[in-house]
Amino acid sequence: MTLAQASTRPDETGAAAARPSAAELPNHGRVLPPADPLVAADRLAAELARTAVERDRSGGHAELERERIRASGLLTLSVPVEYGGAGSDWPTIFATLRRLARVDSALAHVYGFHHLQIAGLFLYGDAAQQSLWLHRTIEHGLFWGNALNPLDKRTQAVETADGFVLDGSKTFCSGSVGSDALTVSAWHEPTGTALIGVLPTHRAGITVNADWDAFGQKQTDSGTVDFAKVLIQHREVTQRPGIAATPWSTLRSCIAQLVMANLYTGIAEGAFEAATGYSRDRARPWFASGVAASLDDPFIQKRYGELWVLLRPAQVLTDLAAQKLQATLDLGPDAVTDLHRGEVAVAVAEAKVTAHRAALEIGTQLFDITGASATSARLGFDRYWRNARVHTLHDPVDYKLRDLGRYATTGRVPDPTAYS
Amino acid sequence: MTLAQASTRPDETGAAAARPSAAELPNHGRVLPPADPLVAADRLAAELARTAVERDRSGGHAELERERIRASGLLTLSVPVEYGGAGSDWPTIFATLRRLARVDSALAHVYGFHHLQIAGLFLYGDAAQQSLWLHRTIEHGLFWGNALNPLDKRTQAVETADGFVLDGSKTFCSGSVGSDALTVSAWHEPTGTALIGVLPTHRAGITVNADWDAFGQKQTDSGTVDFAKVLIQHREVTQRPGIAATPWSTLRSCIAQLVMANLYTGIAEGAFEAATGYSRDRARPWFASGVAASLDDPFIQKRYGELWVLLRPAQVLTDLAAQKLQATLDLGPDAVTDLHRGEVAVAVAEAKVTAHRAALEIGTQLFDITGASATSARLGFDRYWRNARVHTLHDPVDYKLRDLGRYATTGRVPDPTAYS
Amino acid sequence: MTLAQASTRPDETGAAAARPSAAELPNHGRVLPPADPLVAADRLAAELARTAVERDRSGGHAELERERIRASGLLTLSVPVEYGGAGSDWPTIFATLRRLARVDSALAHVYGFHHLQIAGLFLYGDAAQQSLWLHRTIEHGLFWGNALNPLDKRTQAVETADGFVLDGSKTFCSGSVGSDALTVSAWHEPTGTALIGVLPTHRAGITVNADWDAFGQKQTDSGTVDFAKVLIQHREVTQRPGIAATPWSTLRSCIAQLVMANLYTGIAEGAFEAATGYSRDRARPWFASGVAASLDDPFIQKRYGELWVLLRPAQVLTDLAAQKLQATLDLGPDAVTDLHRGEVAVAVAEAKVTAHRAALEIGTQLFDITGASATSARLGFDRYWRNARVHTLHDPVDYKLRDLGRYATTGRVPDPTAYS
Amino acid sequence: MTLAQASTRPDETGAAAARPSAAELPNHGRVLPPADPLVAADRLAAELARTAVERDRSGGHAELERERIRASGLLTLSVPVEYGGAGSDWPTIFATLRRLARVDSALAHVYGFHHLQIAGLFLYGDAAQQSLWLHRTIEHGLFWGNALNPLDKRTQAVETADGFVLDGSKTFCSGSVGSDALTVSAWHEPTGTALIGVLPTHRAGITVNADWDAFGQKQTDSGTVDFAKVLIQHREVTQRPGIAATPWSTLRSCIAQLVMANLYTGIAEGAFEAATGYSRDRARPWFASGVAASLDDPFIQKRYGELWVLLRPAQVLTDLAAQKLQATLDLGPDAVTDLHRGEVAVAVAEAKVTAHRAALEIGTQLFDITGASATSARLGFDRYWRNARVHTLHDPVDYKLRDLGRYATTGRVPDPTAYS
Repeated sequence: MTLAQASTRPDETGAAAARPSAAELPNHGRVLPPADPLVAADRLAAELARTAVERDRSGGHAELERERIRASGLLTLSVPVEYGGAGSDWPTIFATLRRLARVDSALAHVYGFHHLQIAGLFLYGDAAQQSLWLHRTIEHGLFWGNALNPLDKRTQAVETADGFVLDGSKTFCSGSVGSDALTVSAWHEPTGTALIGVLPTHRAGITVNADWDAFGQKQTDSGTVDFAKVLIQHREVTQRPGIAATPWSTLRSCIAQLVMANLYTGIAEGAFEAATGYSRDRARPWFASGVAASLDDPFIQKRYGELWVLLRPAQVLTDLAAQKLQATLDLGPDAVTDLHRGEVAVAVAEAKVTAHRAALEIGTQLFDITGASATSARLGFDRYWRNARVHTLHDPVDYKLRDLGRYATTGRVPDPTAYS
Repeated sequence: MTLAQASTRPDETGAAAARPSAAELPNHGRVLPPADPLVAADRLAAELARTAVERDRSGGHAELERERIRASGLLTLSVPVEYGGAGSDWPTIFATLRRLARVDSALAHVYGFHHLQIAGLFLYGDAAQQSLWLHRTIEHGLFWGNALNPLDKRTQAVETADGFVLDGSKTFCSGSVGSDALTVSAWHEPTGTALIGVLPTHRAGITVNADWDAFGQKQTDSGTVDFAKVLIQHREVTQRPGIAATPWSTLRSCIAQLVMANLYTGIAEGAFEAATGYSRDRARPWFASGVAASLDDPFIQKRYGELWVLLRPAQVLTDLAAQKLQATLDLGPDAVTDLHRGEVAVAVAEAKVTAHRAALEIGTQLFDITGASATSARLGFDRYWRNARVHTLHDPVDYKLRDLGRYATTGRVPDPTAYS
Repeated sequence: MTLAQASTRPDETGAAAARPSAAELPNHGRVLPPADPLVAADRLAAELARTAVERDRSGGHAELERERIRASGLLTLSVPVEYGGAGSDWPTIFATLRRLARVDSALAHVYGFHHLQIAGLFLYGDAAQQSLWLHRTIEHGLFWGNALNPLDKRTQAVETADGFVLDGSKTFCSGSVGSDALTVSAWHEPTGTALIGVLPTHRAGITVNADWDAFGQKQTDSGTVDFAKVLIQHREVTQRPGIAATPWSTLRSCIAQLVMANLYTGIAEGAFEAATGYSRDRARPWFASGVAASLDDPFIQKRYGELWVLLRPAQVLTDLAAQKLQATLDLGPDAVTDLHRGEVAVAVAEAKVTAHRAALEIGTQLFDITGASATSARLGFDRYWRNARVHTLHDPVDYKLRDLGRYATTGRVPDPTAYS
Repeated sequence: MTLAQASTRPDETGAAAARPSAAELPNHGRVLPPADPLVAADRLAAELARTAVERDRSGGHAELERERIRASGLLTLSVPVEYGGAGSDWPTIFATLRRLARVDSALAHVYGFHHLQIAGLFLYGDAAQQSLWLHRTIEHGLFWGNALNPLDKRTQAVETADGFVLDGSKTFCSGSVGSDALTVSAWHEPTGTALIGVLPTHRAGITVNADWDAFGQKQTDSGTVDFAKVLIQHREVTQRPGIAATPWSTLRSCIAQLVMANLYTGIAEGAFEAATGYSRDRARPWFASGVAASLDDPFIQKRYGELWVLLRPAQVLTDLAAQKLQATLDLGPDAVTDLHRGEVAVAVAEAKVTAHRAALEIGTQLFDITGASATSARLGFDRYWRNARVHTLHDPVDYKLRDLGRYATTGRVPDPTAYS
């Protein structure tokens, strides 16, 4: 079952979902699913690779490249066939994500978070919301962004007759710049919980700031979004305040975490490939090695072996987690228990920690192989470490390990939070 | 395809294979395959566990326990159904091996090497040899041992009219004490290569010495075998001197290495379980922790998480390597190319290095979790490290990493040797 | 200033210290300080080395070897010259300890803890107690043991007219078997604190059990001591219940911890030397290395380099901590502040963590250098890991690191406890 | 003995050393030694810190800041008092270097390499050369740069009547941009060796290129220098081609390597301080930690402890190596043997490897402590990793470890090369 078939929650009000106006929601034209997602991803990756080093240096919003992502058709992968999407399963979506991450993990993140928002519609939204927004996503070629950072409670929601009025700021809004639609969360003081909803990015009162300035993952457009008396209508709210989360709905965090794990694995793969290419084509053997080619130096050979045994577990565990996620989604919203959900969270955590370390270590150790000349800014090899370092800080690895330790000793699955 | 179906090499001489005499080859009675190999393995593991700590202390030959292994029917797993065996696939055989290794990695090694010798019959032997020896294995309940250490060239073979005469010693002969039959190798000076053959352990001139005295893996019966004018008949030679190894025949090393990887993984699992049980039932929280139970200490929880992310890759990569091995065996002897064989070797090497580290690290780090009281000799928790430490020295991990490094950078698969 | 000059606390009662009877305190005859402590330590180490592997196997009480330690004169090192001792400074005492630990870390521990008890007399005792016991230590050739485990509160002290009556058990009493005198602690319920005192081991009611059965540090005689209505007279109490610890008195823990750090460093040095000797004299190069001698293999050379950069910091930090301890003791009991004491604790913690890891890692990694043949029980090379593993569990390294982290970020020195 | 007293090599020709013209060698005015080098270094570091993040971003030549270094008087430290310098010992020089490296390891490198060139005059130059150039260094306030990369043999020297003519390029010329004088090496084909000499940077035919573009250590001015028919007079040659290196002269490599070790240690210290400051002032506790301040999180405390035990060995071993270097220099040129020199090289190698790892690990792990918000480019915390990563590639750590392994097992000291 793809996400499409999971939309079992009936339209709660009987009313049509709120329809955003043309001014609010641009129409980029219909986008067709790619014939072969992996081929499309490789082609897109090749395109992005051409400018990746330069764009890493400049940072900022990659308008042109985001248009290429849109044009590739890959944004349709998570949208079911019935809405005009490719209806791919998650292992396929993650495979495309990882291929992009090898060369450009910032845009790969934006791409992955688009699919995360689509997933959110299925996991939280009702049938009308899904129908409206998924059709639009395909017909108008929408690119989704995120404004859901749950640790930042400065955006407050106050209920009115029509819905809720949002006021305040929200940090770490990945993919917000240049997006068409946003998933948002806002703190609702009376219930002490957050609402979650979907909004056109161009809704009156929303300001998306291009103020993301981290030293890595520079083009993720992960800056601040300001809300000034922004109305979110009842029909745009996908999870009302005070609503208890379900095992099904909290699978969203698992998908978000698995986006991370695949990004890390992709970075690790990209760094490994960069090192290998350099060793083959440009590296010179150390004068004391007594060998004619760098790749004949036993220390170099062994170092590559060490990197390989860092990389392989990341690849394998990340793939397994995607399969487990898909199998659990295939059970459908009513059948997924706390334990099902928890075991997905465990598989994802195993993959994330392992990929985290692979990306960081390969990103730094590759230079012990390639040597000093590979530090030229023209090559941009430092971006693997910088991208991995920034992105692996999404949530602390120590707490992820604690969760795994608890599970391994007592069977206690991770508490469903926005980070586990 | 199980190994049975692979015996495509015709009977080379047309003659019946040499039949060992009753004096040479004891008859323990027919052994039936177990109804469910995994259930049988768990039952046997529970039995072995009762005396494992005590037998680790005493070392020596575990006659009684080896009889229990024989009685379990698990020795039939690698023998095809047509010869009366269970005809299990290798993933199943390795799964049983790993379960035994959790509690007794010495006897698990003896058990694994029995199956390795059976595999050797298929990979080297001709149809008549297979027929004779496999029938006997089932009908007489044979337990196989190893006398094939290729680095020890002191055992020399001199050709005669009837076959070859073997003279000299051979170290590291795992499972030789108490065995019924042996795979042997001997150095043939004229060709500068080794012959490989099968012999009844009680053949005249063979002395099996119980002189294995390592500080771990004590009951593997891995001592020295002396050969004094031992006749091996032509029909007992499975690989004549000077015969070029094939991709198929050299899969034997892959199986041997994967026996190791599964042993290491089993040791890691056993150590993890031992620690967990101790933490639950006996460990007291450190006075400065401020918690009521050791498992509530965040440092302890995180440490378990760290061990878990060491263990999981070992499990997963070992399983994947078994599947890859099986798929390659299923191609049959004529279809397996150097590349097929090489990719199995790579998968096995990845698994072996990863499991090696998991076993050693969990074997030593478990004590940082359990604390000083868990060092009582009564518990025997040090045997995990000792067993892992001894067994992981089978061949140097640095050269395995070098092989992986070469493969990852140039696609060069490991050279087929007795260790890769 | 050596400890002798620090005994500034006047005789509190004016009465003579309680004098143990001849039956209680054996007279081994006067022992003279060694001419050169380091030479004496090397000579003793060479003697102990001859039987170290065998005694590691058998475990139990090393009566003969403890007599040799006594005869070496090294037990006098911590006793001031005025009482007939050698009056050595602590860097010298630790240097002798480390030399013994290279070959026999169990007896080195017993030796180090003897000096710790002597130190305790200065840090806790009054002038009369020091005078009485230090004279006796030299004149009667006393060997001190420990019964002070503060985490085991089962030994209770009840005050009477004459002193206190002790009842209950105490675990981890290092050096108790075969000792002449003991430092003891006992829980005093009314004040919720412990008393500390000194007692002849043969005092009526004391039973020393040879029940230590750890898999390493086997001959440390660290078993249980039972107290059955044992009278400790007022004049034998060195720290009454309810007495606040001082920066000076709590230096005892620093000395105890530095005994550990030196033991670990000594084990690391011993393991390194064992590996080196084996590589030089016995190891054969791996067949795939292409070199004629194991020490010419670049992987082996690099591995030795890795072990060396584990060892050197342990040596250097342990030496620095001893110097800092001595400088602080030289300030005298009244001048030592919380901060002085805390900075000693920090230096000791740095040394202990670093030496802990060096000992464990060299103890396990040496085998990757020496290979499988070095696992023969005859060589006893596994005792380095076993000894390091058992001894490094004295108190959890995680809490030591936490203490260092607090200090490094906030300047908070470790809380004075029995473990820091 | 400071370097001054070591200039025992007599003026070889009797002629005055070649005097560069005013056009060739600018006069910045006399610079006075600082009253207290450490105070001066701290003051200069505070100045550099103000713009360090911004200059790290922009890269390029730090003209203004190099003038501040000159004005600080610290460039006089390595010049003996008799020539008007401060005549500091090397432990002091390295202490100032490390303080600068905490905030700006690029300029600290330029500063360290200035002193390295001064050292070279003593180690290679004759008395007249020393007299001329050291007076000038003080009187004219010279800043020295390096053009001595021995692995780049493209710069060729051809002998003429007046000296040698140099032609070709030289990479990795640290501090060359903006320098007044250079140490140069050039390959002399007839002897198959290099000459070493000193030249005014503004000598006709020398072009210094600002083409250094590494991703770290950006302002080290380490680009390419081109030589086009550059005349180096005989009296400017400090080591003629074909002259055998001596233990004394090859101490230059030890000083160069110890400059590295101090830079790495300084980077590690700077990264540690940056993290600590952030944790205290800005970091928020993780929501799942249950504590009120980040520094109260046990995981954070332990992580700081881990970083501390990385940092302390680097500090201590680097200090010890400086003391050993100084003690060896104090022996004087004729007394220093291969073994003396070798033991300095060993101490330096121990320090360098240890500091290398401390800098890299603290540079990357600090973020696991500070969290995602500390990745803002405004803070510039990534420069610690980038600077450490680029600089630690000066020569491969694997070969340094190999050298240490050889020494530790066989007593073979590192071969004197430009890198050991």
